[in-house]
Amino acid sequence: MERRFEAELKQLKASILSMGGFVEQAIEKATHALTARDRKELELVHALETKINEKHIEIDNTCLEVLARLSPVAADLRLILAIIKINTDLERMGDQAVNVSYNAEHYLEDREVTVRIDLPKMSELVREMVRDSLDAFLNEDTVLAQEVLGRDDAVDELKNKAFEILVPYMKQNPNNIEAALDLLLIARNLERMADHATNIAEDVIFACTGEDVRHGVGHTTS
Amino acid sequence: MERRFEAELKQLKASILSMGGFVEQAIEKATHALTARDRKELELVHALETKINEKHIEIDNTCLEVLARLSPVAADLRLILAIIKINTDLERMGDQAVNVSYNAEHYLEDREVTVRIDLPKMSELVREMVRDSLDAFLNEDTVLAQEVLGRDDAVDELKNKAFEILVPYMKQNPNNIEAALDLLLIARNLERMADHATNIAEDVIFACTGEDVRHGVGHTTS
Repeated sequence: MERRFEAELKQLKASILSMGGFVEQAIEKATHALTARDRKELELVHALETKINEKHIEIDNTCLEVLARLSPVAADLRLILAIIKINTDLERMGDQAVNVSYNAEHYLEDREVTVRIDLPKMSELVREMVRDSLDAFLNEDTVLAQEVLGRDDAVDELKNKAFEILVPYMKQNPNNIEAALDLLLIARNLERMADHATNIAEDVIFACTGEDVRHGVGHTTS
Repeated sequence: MERRFEAELKQLKASILSMGGFVEQAIEKATHALTARDRKELELVHALETKINEKHIEIDNTCLEVLARLSPVAADLRLILAIIKINTDLERMGDQAVNVSYNAEHYLEDREVTVRIDLPKMSELVREMVRDSLDAFLNEDTVLAQEVLGRDDAVDELKNKAFEILVPYMKQNPNNIEAALDLLLIARNLERMADHATNIAEDVIFACTGEDVRHGVGHTTS
């Protein structure tokens, strides 16, 4: 059983990492299309989402099989449950990347918004959170996972700043409200993605330590 | 084993239903506060979210224990995995209700938006989706679960309609942009909640039939 579990786990970890790579690329393409004003990149987001969804179903099925065949307990069980949850968060991030791409497509039909919103920085921070939360998962590195949790505030601040710039802009440029609204919704999507990366980091901590850091409690299960 | 599993399952189902009740109330309070212009109701949303978070941790721990002690397989295993996922979706709906309450609080500080947005209808539809998806779960009723899936479009339509009314309103009333934006974001939060209810309905179908109806595929696992 031990060796079979290790082999399945190795395969699951590889699948999660590959899915995470697709998510990172989807975020990158969806936001880069905005600054490059390149619709072609948006088509790639949809292709990436298809790959993300395929991995999602594959990973979920493998986890179900592992639980049914090997009945893992303790740390091994926590790890499989963490993978099931991480899988869900990555899939939802794929949905959010598609939402960004719809808003970006709508934005590119309109006149440019003339104030600068640091969406590239937000996009970069979110991608780093995805990468590092998954590195933390791969290496069972709770220090890195904790560090990822702390970075959520930086993304929230950038989103708040985007609102502070865009709302007055909308008041002064009512004819360009739709384009500004697109950017505002994209900032919100990116913030939501950072929340998902935070959830992943919490799941990594739970898988490694059995400690529940959600909802601000330090609850330990046996 | 059989009888112990049945007892645990009964307890878990009761907990999920009680959590769903809190979620429904949170949605109701957060949206009713808007039409009643009553801040007091918004405080209740935070109290409800605390209860939702407590249930979330309790249910997750019970599922972990059941998997570790009883190693369920086949339909029983699918049911436990469905509970873990439903639990996550309900908890995220609680977060969304809190987001609605923040936007509602901000809205109530401003002048009223003079166009009518049917947020009460959206709120009602979403609460029905939560109630029916959980009824479907309780009674293992895949027909009702399928029916819930079909209702997502009605919520999307109401959200689109809200945008179609609010964007021109913002253009004509640039001084009331912030209040209109609050309503627009609330419409989006409600749409997101409907997505979570849809996820729950999908999980019910998977638990009952082993059939994966996510991502538009009909994939069956053994």
